[in-house]
Amino acid sequence: MIETDILIIGAGPAGLFTVFEAGLLKMRCHIIDALPQIGGQLSELYPKKPIFDIPGFPSVLAGGLIDNLYEQIKQFKPGFTLNEYAINLTKIEENLFEVTTNKGTVHRAKAIVIAGGLGSFEPKKPLIDEISSFEEKGVNYFVKNPEDYTGKNVVIAGGGDSALDWAIHLSEITSSLTLIHRRNEFRGALDSVEKVRLLKQKGKINLITPAEVTQLHGNETLEAVSVEHEGETKTIKTDYFIPLFGLVPRLGPIANWGLEIERNAVKVDNSTDYSTNIPGIYAVGDINTYPHKMKLILCGFHEAAMACQSIYQRLNPNKKFVLKYTTVSGIDGFDGTRKEAEKQVVASID
Amino acid sequence: MIETDILIIGAGPAGLFTVFEAGLLKMRCHIIDALPQIGGQLSELYPKKPIFDIPGFPSVLAGGLIDNLYEQIKQFKPGFTLNEYAINLTKIEENLFEVTTNKGTVHRAKAIVIAGGLGSFEPKKPLIDEISSFEEKGVNYFVKNPEDYTGKNVVIAGGGDSALDWAIHLSEITSSLTLIHRRNEFRGALDSVEKVRLLKQKGKINLITPAEVTQLHGNETLEAVSVEHEGETKTIKTDYFIPLFGLVPRLGPIANWGLEIERNAVKVDNSTDYSTNIPGIYAVGDINTYPHKMKLILCGFHEAAMACQSIYQRLNPNKKFVLKYTTVSGIDGFDGTRKEAEKQVVASID
Ligand SMILES: Cc1cc2nc3c(=O)[nH]c(=O)nc-3n(C[C@H](O)[C@H](O)[C@H](O)COP(=O)(O)OP(=O)(O)OC[C@H]3O[C@@H](n4cnc5c(N)ncnc54)[C@H](O)[C@@H]3O)c2cc1C
Ligand SMILES: Cc1cc2nc3c(=O)[nH]c(=O)nc-3n(C[C@H](O)[C@H](O)[C@H](O)COP(=O)(O)OP(=O)(O)OC[C@H]3O[C@@H](n4cnc5c(N)ncnc54)[C@H](O)[C@@H]3O)c2cc1C
Repeated sequence: MIETDILIIGAGPAGLFTVFEAGLLKMRCHIIDALPQIGGQLSELYPKKPIFDIPGFPSVLAGGLIDNLYEQIKQFKPGFTLNEYAINLTKIEENLFEVTTNKGTVHRAKAIVIAGGLGSFEPKKPLIDEISSFEEKGVNYFVKNPEDYTGKNVVIAGGGDSALDWAIHLSEITSSLTLIHRRNEFRGALDSVEKVRLLKQKGKINLITPAEVTQLHGNETLEAVSVEHEGETKTIKTDYFIPLFGLVPRLGPIANWGLEIERNAVKVDNSTDYSTNIPGIYAVGDINTYPHKMKLILCGFHEAAMACQSIYQRLNPNKKFVLKYTTVSGIDGFDGTRKEAEKQVVASID
Repeated sequence: MIETDILIIGAGPAGLFTVFEAGLLKMRCHIIDALPQIGGQLSELYPKKPIFDIPGFPSVLAGGLIDNLYEQIKQFKPGFTLNEYAINLTKIEENLFEVTTNKGTVHRAKAIVIAGGLGSFEPKKPLIDEISSFEEKGVNYFVKNPEDYTGKNVVIAGGGDSALDWAIHLSEITSSLTLIHRRNEFRGALDSVEKVRLLKQKGKINLITPAEVTQLHGNETLEAVSVEHEGETKTIKTDYFIPLFGLVPRLGPIANWGLEIERNAVKVDNSTDYSTNIPGIYAVGDINTYPHKMKLILCGFHEAAMACQSIYQRLNPNKKFVLKYTTVSGIDGFDGTRKEAEKQVVASID
């Protein structure tokens, strides 16, 4: 069982920054995310695109912002349960909640911050009857550890940036790489399209378009896929089939936790502390709703700071919350590091 | 008369970021600040100190953050009235306000955003009877244009970073520079103290401690100052006397504009849009107050975004506010520039 002060559901920018604000108040955090990596929409949907409205950044790549946020929070040593969905939440007693994931991991925390964005991201699956029986037995919807594919035969399907980028990346280490798309046209960064063109010419990528994977074959694990191409069906031997057809967010289990839901989002009290109708549970970032709500990254940051202030007061009813300036007080990490402004000196000059 | 869509009072981080959020919604801004430079507390009180809690910056110098914010907003071409206090605010008609400064500059705008921080910064003045008659006639409380001091005789008084830094900086261009402090000990960055020590040894700075300026002399303009040093009074000929004794913020005139004031701050409705009790007037950043308010830079950013959304709806009652992602829509500056994400291509690979 994982125990912490604040359990955060969602590792997008709002969830990550919660770790920072909690850390300033000496509260420890653990984050659950359905995706294999941190960063929420920014890492999954547009890591290489610039964002122009993060205060203080005339332009920052979404992936770069997530790297920066991780760098900013790491001294507070957040724990992570990645690649798992939070499915059950129950209140054990006052200031004690239990959250279980689809893989059975149990977490207990004194307070909950839901930073679930548009919901947990789930892959769009191709309509192939037998696909569910091959999941994690050769069929993967995410590339979690690229090294797993070293020396293997891999078929990737899809026509967007993910499919292009993973085809490029994995073609360097696989024994064979086939990229299949149901149209001739790919939609992605010019640069990626050019790279795939080159790798095809060099024979490193076997490109089949317009085509579709229609059947999966194998006993225990995947052994081959059937591909329909220009009216003909051929069979390709493969160890892995990776359909990258995009993701759909689903509010999913969060809707069943007894929280007040409005327009597919969790209602919070924005006039105070972004708390939900269940005391001890807060919601920040895209997942929450209130009058005039804007689904912007910068708003999630403010909400996270306000929620942490409130959690601190809940968990320390006898202490007075005192706002400290990081510039003046410095930052003490849970890893023993200290960040602080250069000291001033008091000195006479002779 | 200066006319604009939104008149912002205060050029601190909250005021500056308001220009950005307004610009995204095609509204033009003009900013008034009592100080000669933008940046509010960050530029005036701790420009060289690191801030650790700006989201996405593990560490950023206060002055650097202001530079970044200016870089981020400049394409929206904000106007500036610097070095002037907003003293009067009157409502002319629905969606039309007039604001006048202490120097008589008149501004008209459709909406007002007060981003006045702790109030307008006013210099602490030394207790010398005749000082007011020499103001701007040789006595300056700020160094606005360093070039003005080229080849002149200058006396600076003070014992903190401002006094040290300006002494260092101006000693390069003045004919003579005298630094006077009532104690022997200076309080500042080690680096600055060391530099002054060196400049004193080289004879570039004439240091007198412990000492005090007690009288000012001159006809039309300043000609000399009397300095009391170890029981003796001597007269030093000088063109300028710059006392740098720090600043005190004063809510001042803002308190007389009919706004609801609570604990020295302007009460706003944080459950919606950070509007004050006067429709069309908003308050963001340190100057406002509401339940659980934290005087943090990152909170001011959120408040600015929310206020601009509301102003847009006020001024465009027949248009629906549609949230746009900068990543997707790009940014069109009022200077004709455009920022946008690299275009995706739709291309077949052969
Ligand atoms: C193409 C695009 C461009 C954008 N451009 C901008 C822009 O320019 N400026 C801007 O401010 N915003 C922009 N946005 C919006 C911005 O990405 C979101 O506001 C931001 O991602 C919200 O952050 P978050 O932390 O609230 O949630 P998210 O980033 O959505 O992260 C939520 C995370 O929670 C996880 N999760 C949810 N439920 C569960 C569960 N039950 N169990 C486990 N994990 C769960 C999800 O898997 C996800 O990783 C853009 C969005 C897109 C798609
Ligand atoms: C030493 C120190 C360290 C700090 N460290 C941190 C930190 O680590 N993190 C953090 O988030 N915050 C920190 N702060 C607080 C932070 O500086 C403030 O929250 C921030 O400056 C508020 O920004 P603002 O735009 O609301 O107002 P301000 O920065 O105060 O700017 C307000 C401006 O309005 C002007 N003004 C006011 N009234 C008038 C008028 N009538 N006419 C004309 N101009 C007027 C003033 O001259 C001023 O320039 C620190 C503050 C100090 C002093």
